[in-house]
Amino acid sequence: MVKQRFALLSDFVDAIMRRDGRRTGGGSATQEALSRPATERISVACKVLMARIGDAARVAVAEQALAAYAELDEPEKRAFFRMLLNDYGVDPADIRKAYQEWDQKQDDTAASALFQAVEPKRQSLLRRLNLAPGATLKLVRMRSDLLRAMRDAPELEAVDLDFAHLLSSWFNRGFLRMQRIDWNSSAAILERIMRYESVHPMQGWEDLRRRLNPHDRRMFAFFHPATGDEPLIFVEVALTQGVPDAISTILTAPEPDAPVEADTAVFYSINNSLPGLKGVSFGNFLIKQVASELSAELSGLTRFVTLSPAPGFARWLEAQDSERARALKEALDRRDWITDEKNIERLRPEVEAFAARYFVTARNKAGAPPDPVARFHLGNGASAWRLNWPADRSEHALKAAHGLMINYLYELAAIEAQHERFVRDGTVTHGPSLADALRRLSGED
Amino acid sequence: MVKQRFALLSDFVDAIMRRDGRRTGGGSATQEALSRPATERISVACKVLMARIGDAARVAVAEQALAAYAELDEPEKRAFFRMLLNDYGVDPADIRKAYQEWDQKQDDTAASALFQAVEPKRQSLLRRLNLAPGATLKLVRMRSDLLRAMRDAPELEAVDLDFAHLLSSWFNRGFLRMQRIDWNSSAAILERIMRYESVHPMQGWEDLRRRLNPHDRRMFAFFHPATGDEPLIFVEVALTQGVPDAISTILTAPEPDAPVEADTAVFYSINNSLPGLKGVSFGNFLIKQVASELSAELSGLTRFVTLSPAPGFARWLEAQDSERARALKEALDRRDWITDEKNIERLRPEVEAFAARYFVTARNKAGAPPDPVARFHLGNGASAWRLNWPADRSEHALKAAHGLMINYLYELAAIEAQHERFVRDGTVTHGPSLADALRRLSGED
Amino acid sequence: MVKQRFALLSDFVDAIMRRDGRRTGGGSATQEALSRPATERISVACKVLMARIGDAARVAVAEQALAAYAELDEPEKRAFFRMLLNDYGVDPADIRKAYQEWDQKQDDTAASALFQAVEPKRQSLLRRLNLAPGATLKLVRMRSDLLRAMRDAPELEAVDLDFAHLLSSWFNRGFLRMQRIDWNSSAAILERIMRYESVHPMQGWEDLRRRLNPHDRRMFAFFHPATGDEPLIFVEVALTQGVPDAISTILTAPEPDAPVEADTAVFYSINNSLPGLKGVSFGNFLIKQVASELSAELSGLTRFVTLSPAPGFARWLEAQDSERARALKEALDRRDWITDEKNIERLRPEVEAFAARYFVTARNKAGAPPDPVARFHLGNGASAWRLNWPADRSEHALKAAHGLMINYLYELAAIEAQHERFVRDGTVTHGPSLADALRRLSGED
Amino acid sequence: MVKQRFALLSDFVDAIMRRDGRRTGGGSATQEALSRPATERISVACKVLMARIGDAARVAVAEQALAAYAELDEPEKRAFFRMLLNDYGVDPADIRKAYQEWDQKQDDTAASALFQAVEPKRQSLLRRLNLAPGATLKLVRMRSDLLRAMRDAPELEAVDLDFAHLLSSWFNRGFLRMQRIDWNSSAAILERIMRYESVHPMQGWEDLRRRLNPHDRRMFAFFHPATGDEPLIFVEVALTQGVPDAISTILTAPEPDAPVEADTAVFYSINNSLPGLKGVSFGNFLIKQVASELSAELSGLTRFVTLSPAPGFARWLEAQDSERARALKEALDRRDWITDEKNIERLRPEVEAFAARYFVTARNKAGAPPDPVARFHLGNGASAWRLNWPADRSEHALKAAHGLMINYLYELAAIEAQHERFVRDGTVTHGPSLADALRRLSGED
Repeated sequence: MVKQRFALLSDFVDAIMRRDGRRTGGGSATQEALSRPATERISVACKVLMARIGDAARVAVAEQALAAYAELDEPEKRAFFRMLLNDYGVDPADIRKAYQEWDQKQDDTAASALFQAVEPKRQSLLRRLNLAPGATLKLVRMRSDLLRAMRDAPELEAVDLDFAHLLSSWFNRGFLRMQRIDWNSSAAILERIMRYESVHPMQGWEDLRRRLNPHDRRMFAFFHPATGDEPLIFVEVALTQGVPDAISTILTAPEPDAPVEADTAVFYSINNSLPGLKGVSFGNFLIKQVASELSAELSGLTRFVTLSPAPGFARWLEAQDSERARALKEALDRRDWITDEKNIERLRPEVEAFAARYFVTARNKAGAPPDPVARFHLGNGASAWRLNWPADRSEHALKAAHGLMINYLYELAAIEAQHERFVRDGTVTHGPSLADALRRLSGED
Repeated sequence: MVKQRFALLSDFVDAIMRRDGRRTGGGSATQEALSRPATERISVACKVLMARIGDAARVAVAEQALAAYAELDEPEKRAFFRMLLNDYGVDPADIRKAYQEWDQKQDDTAASALFQAVEPKRQSLLRRLNLAPGATLKLVRMRSDLLRAMRDAPELEAVDLDFAHLLSSWFNRGFLRMQRIDWNSSAAILERIMRYESVHPMQGWEDLRRRLNPHDRRMFAFFHPATGDEPLIFVEVALTQGVPDAISTILTAPEPDAPVEADTAVFYSINNSLPGLKGVSFGNFLIKQVASELSAELSGLTRFVTLSPAPGFARWLEAQDSERARALKEALDRRDWITDEKNIERLRPEVEAFAARYFVTARNKAGAPPDPVARFHLGNGASAWRLNWPADRSEHALKAAHGLMINYLYELAAIEAQHERFVRDGTVTHGPSLADALRRLSGED
Repeated sequence: MVKQRFALLSDFVDAIMRRDGRRTGGGSATQEALSRPATERISVACKVLMARIGDAARVAVAEQALAAYAELDEPEKRAFFRMLLNDYGVDPADIRKAYQEWDQKQDDTAASALFQAVEPKRQSLLRRLNLAPGATLKLVRMRSDLLRAMRDAPELEAVDLDFAHLLSSWFNRGFLRMQRIDWNSSAAILERIMRYESVHPMQGWEDLRRRLNPHDRRMFAFFHPATGDEPLIFVEVALTQGVPDAISTILTAPEPDAPVEADTAVFYSINNSLPGLKGVSFGNFLIKQVASELSAELSGLTRFVTLSPAPGFARWLEAQDSERARALKEALDRRDWITDEKNIERLRPEVEAFAARYFVTARNKAGAPPDPVARFHLGNGASAWRLNWPADRSEHALKAAHGLMINYLYELAAIEAQHERFVRDGTVTHGPSLADALRRLSGED
Repeated sequence: MVKQRFALLSDFVDAIMRRDGRRTGGGSATQEALSRPATERISVACKVLMARIGDAARVAVAEQALAAYAELDEPEKRAFFRMLLNDYGVDPADIRKAYQEWDQKQDDTAASALFQAVEPKRQSLLRRLNLAPGATLKLVRMRSDLLRAMRDAPELEAVDLDFAHLLSSWFNRGFLRMQRIDWNSSAAILERIMRYESVHPMQGWEDLRRRLNPHDRRMFAFFHPATGDEPLIFVEVALTQGVPDAISTILTAPEPDAPVEADTAVFYSINNSLPGLKGVSFGNFLIKQVASELSAELSGLTRFVTLSPAPGFARWLEAQDSERARALKEALDRRDWITDEKNIERLRPEVEAFAARYFVTARNKAGAPPDPVARFHLGNGASAWRLNWPADRSEHALKAAHGLMINYLYELAAIEAQHERFVRDGTVTHGPSLADALRRLSGED
């Protein structure tokens, strides 16, 4: 079967290369064609894919194209993306012609033809690449490469738009299935969970096992049929009495050997596994589905909160121009408060005052809250419920947020209205302690 | 939860309806909104879906829209499709503006904006409807309604193009999983198989059971994660000694009680279950994957053939203008041959001569073979291998094809080349008996 | 592999047959040995099984023995069972010797040796037969044959004791798994359910489907790992408002298209599938586990009852010697009441009076209630809760019970105490209507 | 439910304790009964279990008994086993009476009664304990405790016989299911595999992962329905070119990233997980089933061998009385050969000569080969195929076997005959190199 497909592919490759005028004789074209450099093979394979060939041949050629892609190094990948940009975009002449036709007739056929002309050819190319077995995950990873390449080559954004367009369609929410992750999950899945956890990195199998203890922990993930055992996104939940105010109370809690009587479910880590799915959002759905399942399973639960980082707080504070802000920043930077309870008590009102502003009233250039995690949860309809400081003394958290964390509250009965207000008016619903802290700052700064 | 979502929905509906100027007071808007006629509810829900609302609200509104659709009668459905055509197409002013911008700048941003302007809004609408649980299958069924409506309203084709575009993307081959159907399959699946079998209709559970006897039968189907237990397409296979020349030898064969020693796998019935997936082709992939699995399982198999109907033969013969064709047609219409072996022997050369022409050289207006089943198998790269007459004496087959059937041959090593020749040059690869029969007709008629 | 095993087996068979003095030459012993009549082959295979051979050979020989058994006709089976009785029992000389040794030493080794001597050899034989793939189910069926054979040959009971002993051990409750049966169950399982339902026989797939409607019906079965898809026992449950007083209200109830609001779960049919498991009781466990699962799933349920037949009522009434009983019997036998509501009202007090006696105070020779179904449910700790007459007008029920049925009530909090009283004192806990009915009869008859 | 069961249990406990004359008043018996020491509770629970109580109560009491057992310390466990020995054995008076009855009547009823009298009561007790959820595994572990206790209390063997008898019946081969273990297995299973591997202990998850690499490794285990995720026995297989002669070539082989072309399957580690199943042998079945599956999957395999330790070689050599043996032993003990290739070459003929004798002709007191692993494989019908020295330089292997290993060969076509010869005549089939080595020693020593 494999051999046969190769023979087949080479025939097509052969045909293409002759047509391109780059080959004259016949002979053992097969061997030669497939021993060309990956850059050449991928370019030929893409051309073949856009030609009128049979479905099964397409599957074989798509496989070859993706295999060739896997051999590319960084500069070659960038060249490939540039090829997608330049050779698989739109044809201005086609657009003009289609537009004029439509402009005259204004009928549906003409509109369709115009749509065809305006759709970049790479959308079609990506759809055909997706025919190969296992292609979807490879295309997600290809987009991840593309996003990296875009840092130095912003013009590639046009290519990314097409990736984003197709991935949104393929990763439709209806195709996802939520699955509980526990010690009965396969090692293949668990290993990925360990690798993908970046909010509170895993310390190995023992740490993972602790986070899966069914007595006081839960973990859930979304999977997609075309990406098999890859957890697309997963959330870690702690079942607690009361709302925890520091991440260490979760990460280092002693293991219970019987189910705890919890009134609170704390979403303390949410991870998107695949950077290539940027902008294709499932987090929202996952949190709500998990909240709904936990409600059904554990009747004692009365609260769903997060314990979330504030990854932009330090940078934002840095950028504040007031004397008071500068004073706070300096005090925090000294880090002499970390182990000094009195110092902490002294600093807390000031930290909370700025933190409340940071979450509730501050806006970035795009007019949204400066904190990316805040944008996610507030956009889901959660409220900014309680500030916790210091709540995370890991080096990373000290640097990014001076150790600040926050609980967002998910009240099922309120999320839609709060989402609405946030989207429409930018209103950030917040808890009483934030309101207090805000008041402390107002009129002064 | 349900109540809450209704309340929410009604808020949006309320908002929309006020904006539309159709409501003034406030009060128990909820109740009223949801007690409106389905035609009104679906129209409002579509508007809400296109507004800027939260994802979870969208899920609720999409559910409402699909629930309202389920209540529509035929004329109301047609009205709904017309609404999709007229209200959710493109905006000519937008297109003009985007085109002029693009024409000046010719950059990627402008091209993207033009693409947005040219994409009919109903694509976005359909994507959002697809957020509701179980929506994908409902949208497939909606398209089936649309196809029926198009018989009297061909202008709806523009709407169908968008359905086809999205369904092709959602029913990507990589998302399908092939599953063997046997007596261990669930009753829920088997019942659907019985309902969907239209080539050789099932006579009930006993007939089904016979067709699943593992000793000499196989059945395989494709499933999609978003449509659950719905078999999208399925193929029935008989394992035989030699190539069967009549369908009755398959359908009424005595049941073996041990595995048969088969050299041939006969694909004797292929059914697309969901008319709403018209044009989204899996048959090709299914046949090849089944052939590959059977090869691996049963090393004795040396041949993969179909035993296929010729659904357009009678009509095509009718349309032939020669004396000879008319004579044959009259003889066949008399039906006195059915039970008269001599008569059959006398007529056979003539039937085969015309049948060979019908399959190999005849062309319809579009330049393709007139037989739809032939187009499918030849397009897959199979050859027209052997004519069988009479091979199906059911009333249906006598009427449509004067009892004619044909074996298409799938040779794994040849299908791609044959596909290529068929697509490029229209060449129909055919077996020796068809070649003989063709010769009989040539130069005379 | 198969051939090799045959060769092997024949070697052993060969050896055995020589030892038995029935063969002298060597030659193609294999062929001959395996072409002997089944009666001979099974006898030889049993001897081989008891010899000192390898485990894998044992598996092969056990297979041969069971294959030979499958070819036996009724008289041959009886002869086989007689062989088990006579040739695979105990050896009196061994017992005497072991007893004397034990009597002298009284130590554990001697006790073990005595145990060995007293254990019939057929227990060991059955354990070895059970090594063959699929053997467990075949042995269950073999016992079913044995039970039939015992009707004319009560001396075979000694053989049955050994079957019962081993099957009780193999079908330990801990090895069973309960499974819900519904429309997603495999056709292979559902077909067996249809075949095994004998309390209220199934009218075909449509009837089955009705009984699986998730809105108001449930079905559960026990399976054992060694008998695969065979449902060992299953119970059918109707979810109702109030306690139904006639079986027709269950069997012919219109199908709801949404879940009903039920307060009662009615176990209306309990079937032991395999007669060969007689005396190995699971019914008790199944009912309690189902009640417990339904409680967890459906919080509205407040009552678990049966709607049970009274299969021995007519015969018992027949045997009553009083004038009053005879009068009632004659009136019931006339059957003119069946469609005459007035007649029914007139007869009811009398029917209930005798029925109450039948269930509550009557005793058979063994001192237990005469009704077998009553013995089962009362033994489980249920109470005789309510008489229903007429409740089943099927010919079978009219003949066996004059149409009488009864609800047994399972109160989880009371079953153990009631079981205890029933077992210790023979007390039948009964509902108020039975108490009334009993009073009506007392002191008169 | 739980509360109710406790109440219930206490009632029975109450009853029993009154009967035993140890309690007089009534009152809050429940609390008190369950707060008694575990030794008392288990003793009472056992008595209750043997009384005539309902099945469901039995489940509850069995649970209590096993819960109490879990609280016992070592001396208390020994006391418990002694109680099983003394209070749950046979009643000599019963035996005598039953024997005399049988001796007079010699009929089947009397034989059955005698069987009853001779069967130790603890068999019945163990069967009833086995009713509790999860009981089977707990009883296996209890037997493991028993085996340990027997070291100092050999009289407990009588108790062990009953455990062995029942476990053999419950762990019937037909109830086991073989499962491949790989990286898709659950962490819960894999963790147990790591814990139970004692032949070549696992170095952690990375080591495990290496041993599960599908390109050149396989692992299979047997599971039983009543012990869930516990792998009862598992075998690790390496797929190699040629037969490996040292364990390090397997344990430290570089990982291939594509399937290897193997001609040999090496069973290099076989582990029985549960000591409590001693004497209930599955190894035989597992090896043959694995060989059969691998044959079907990998057509290139032509050989199935083990690479096995020789755990008794050093001790056996120590016990040899000849000058030559002593000389060899001394040389080996010096260990200066380990890293000195020349020394090795010099010693090898002598090591092989003694090793050949050890495996082929030496016998222990019971008349069997002195090596336990040899007894297992030879008893399975394998041959002693090739000596490998030095093959394992781990401290453990140097101490127990001076680094010696051996390949046993499983030839499917020969195992039954070889098994037969081994069992009947004690013949050890051996490979040519062992034959050579044997010759070297003969006539001299």
